[in-house]
Amino acid sequence: MNLPLGFGYASTYAGIRQVEKDDLALIVSGLPANAAAVFTQNQVQAAPVKLSRRHLKLSKGLVGAVLVNAGNANCATRTGDAVALATCKAAAKALRLPVPQVLPASTGVIGVEMDGRKIVDALPGLIGALSTDRFADVANAIMTTDLVPKTAFAERKLRRATIRVAGMTKGSGMIQPRMATTLGFVMTDAEIPVAPLRAMLKRTVERSYNRLSVDGDTSTNDTLLLLANGASGIRPDPKEFPKVEEAVAQVMENLAMAIARDGEGARKLVTIVISGAKTNDGAAQMARAIANSPLVKTAVAGSDPNWGRILSAAGNSGVTFDPSKTDIHMQNVLVCRGGLAAPFSEAELKQKLDAPECEIRLTIRGTGKGATRFWTCDFTEGYIRINASYRT
Amino acid sequence: MNLPLGFGYASTYAGIRQVEKDDLALIVSGLPANAAAVFTQNQVQAAPVKLSRRHLKLSKGLVGAVLVNAGNANCATRTGDAVALATCKAAAKALRLPVPQVLPASTGVIGVEMDGRKIVDALPGLIGALSTDRFADVANAIMTTDLVPKTAFAERKLRRATIRVAGMTKGSGMIQPRMATTLGFVMTDAEIPVAPLRAMLKRTVERSYNRLSVDGDTSTNDTLLLLANGASGIRPDPKEFPKVEEAVAQVMENLAMAIARDGEGARKLVTIVISGAKTNDGAAQMARAIANSPLVKTAVAGSDPNWGRILSAAGNSGVTFDPSKTDIHMQNVLVCRGGLAAPFSEAELKQKLDAPECEIRLTIRGTGKGATRFWTCDFTEGYIRINASYRT
Repeated sequence: MNLPLGFGYASTYAGIRQVEKDDLALIVSGLPANAAAVFTQNQVQAAPVKLSRRHLKLSKGLVGAVLVNAGNANCATRTGDAVALATCKAAAKALRLPVPQVLPASTGVIGVEMDGRKIVDALPGLIGALSTDRFADVANAIMTTDLVPKTAFAERKLRRATIRVAGMTKGSGMIQPRMATTLGFVMTDAEIPVAPLRAMLKRTVERSYNRLSVDGDTSTNDTLLLLANGASGIRPDPKEFPKVEEAVAQVMENLAMAIARDGEGARKLVTIVISGAKTNDGAAQMARAIANSPLVKTAVAGSDPNWGRILSAAGNSGVTFDPSKTDIHMQNVLVCRGGLAAPFSEAELKQKLDAPECEIRLTIRGTGKGATRFWTCDFTEGYIRINASYRT
Repeated sequence: MNLPLGFGYASTYAGIRQVEKDDLALIVSGLPANAAAVFTQNQVQAAPVKLSRRHLKLSKGLVGAVLVNAGNANCATRTGDAVALATCKAAAKALRLPVPQVLPASTGVIGVEMDGRKIVDALPGLIGALSTDRFADVANAIMTTDLVPKTAFAERKLRRATIRVAGMTKGSGMIQPRMATTLGFVMTDAEIPVAPLRAMLKRTVERSYNRLSVDGDTSTNDTLLLLANGASGIRPDPKEFPKVEEAVAQVMENLAMAIARDGEGARKLVTIVISGAKTNDGAAQMARAIANSPLVKTAVAGSDPNWGRILSAAGNSGVTFDPSKTDIHMQNVLVCRGGLAAPFSEAELKQKLDAPECEIRLTIRGTGKGATRFWTCDFTEGYIRINASYRT
């Protein structure tokens, strides 16, 4: 799979996190890219989120560089706003870009002052290392408790040529994106104006990052950026936008699934499929309730086909439905028919549940056409271990 | 502390749960008691919940006996309704009560057929064992994953005499009562008509059970009963109702705290105190978001003063507030002032957080008078261990 044309990548260790592992990264676009972005809906918003919003407004959606660090969220600190602005200014100067064309993004601990000088001092080296093929290095540098870097790629053959989409994301805990992700950067070399790009992002985030929860906590720093720099020279015909959108959606769904699979302490990727709800939103709300139930997630961890917890979680979702018309499948085995126990071999299903992927399917009969797919992970002792001592 | 007059208690092992430990209990009132009840708001409701609602309606709020079992929730089963009715009928016949004066309650696994004959067969022995002082036996018999029985007592001296209130409850997981609890039975020997009794329960449940969450999961079987049998011969003057209500509230708050303290895997009782929100409901919503954040709960487990997670959870509650006017105390130590880090000794606070009780206080300055207190517990590997293998 080829990377989109016209983007450069670099990463370095700036000393922000304690472990010596790259913690500062830069994504640049040779031609300023048209950008669409969604950010966290948490009322507590990190300085880089606030500044990115402002920059996107000032630049009318043009982005030349993204400066991202891991190890410190730059959130709820006295100097946060100043640090975000100073580091963007330094990067803009070195890259000869207008300041609003540089977006900052941060992830890490909340409430600890971030030393902007570390970033400014590391910038020359970072910029010197820019290369079109260091995509994977950036995906590595933005990790926090992630065990694996998360990337996804797609191509679509349009009438005149092929356009490429590549995305990277990070996140393992504090994951329940709402209208956004933790950090996610999706690049394409197609040329797409800002307005349809925004519409595209809005729709694709709805079926990818907004259908994902690791632990029900929405971060203060969530940022998802879609950059279209047109470096392929391809300006898709508006009739071809759906084809581009499918490629973007494919990349974003793969990134969302990768986050769930790498959820803190997770051993299993859980896919929840709901159908027959009154509306798609209702289906998503039910799926989210199931995905966030610690009892469902621990049952999956223990390969326990405890479907009663699934039904009970759906019953708590706030969505009206008739339990007596509800069927539940786990790993394609019918475990609940019309809200009651269905006969199944507990031993066989337990074995099937030992697989690294688990599918929970909840179907409501004769109610509506609302459907969704939602990703989460199981809940293990590992999550507790990681989070009982993340900060100290 | 004396028990309320006029109630009888008994428990026995009927073979419903696998471990040989009492699993069937009976509470009777010599004079039928005026009753008020609240039940789960989960849309999936167990058979005993549905039947209790019906019986209370038919009996106009009179209750002579409560038949309660642990080990099986009698929920989402083919025969659930029939089993609940048949066991109530058998108890009513043996106790010479109208059937609607017997309320059933069940707790345990969902979706497994319950054998009603085991209960019917155990009834004669159970009734024979009825005694005014076997209160603690019943509190023991209704436990599931509870480590300790949970009881609370209060007395109030009224103008003419003293009335007594005694309560028991169970629950350790699947605990986020909404307008109800897991199972809770509160008895008083004061004579209070049904209407004011209901009003009293509605208000007291709001400040006790509805301010409690262990894991954010609301059970299908939650039932909280308040029984007033008048056996003390005391009919409080309506002017004295507030005094009675205070006693009921005290018992219910103690029961709710006992549930949080005994939350599955919990090592710490966590009390969340919010003040300065626009409304009390808003304060409760913020407290609930903090109480249900796995990241806050694991930080408490690790004695990690990670206040950023508390602020972030409040920011996710859906309640509008200004983070820059928000202070956070943990164990009475100011850790966040105006949304920013306050200076504190991490080592000292860490030590304070090792205590068996943790207080998180979030104060919003200059916004409103909305306040609440909310109970939860820390989140440890124990919760995962218990719930990854509850059923099998």
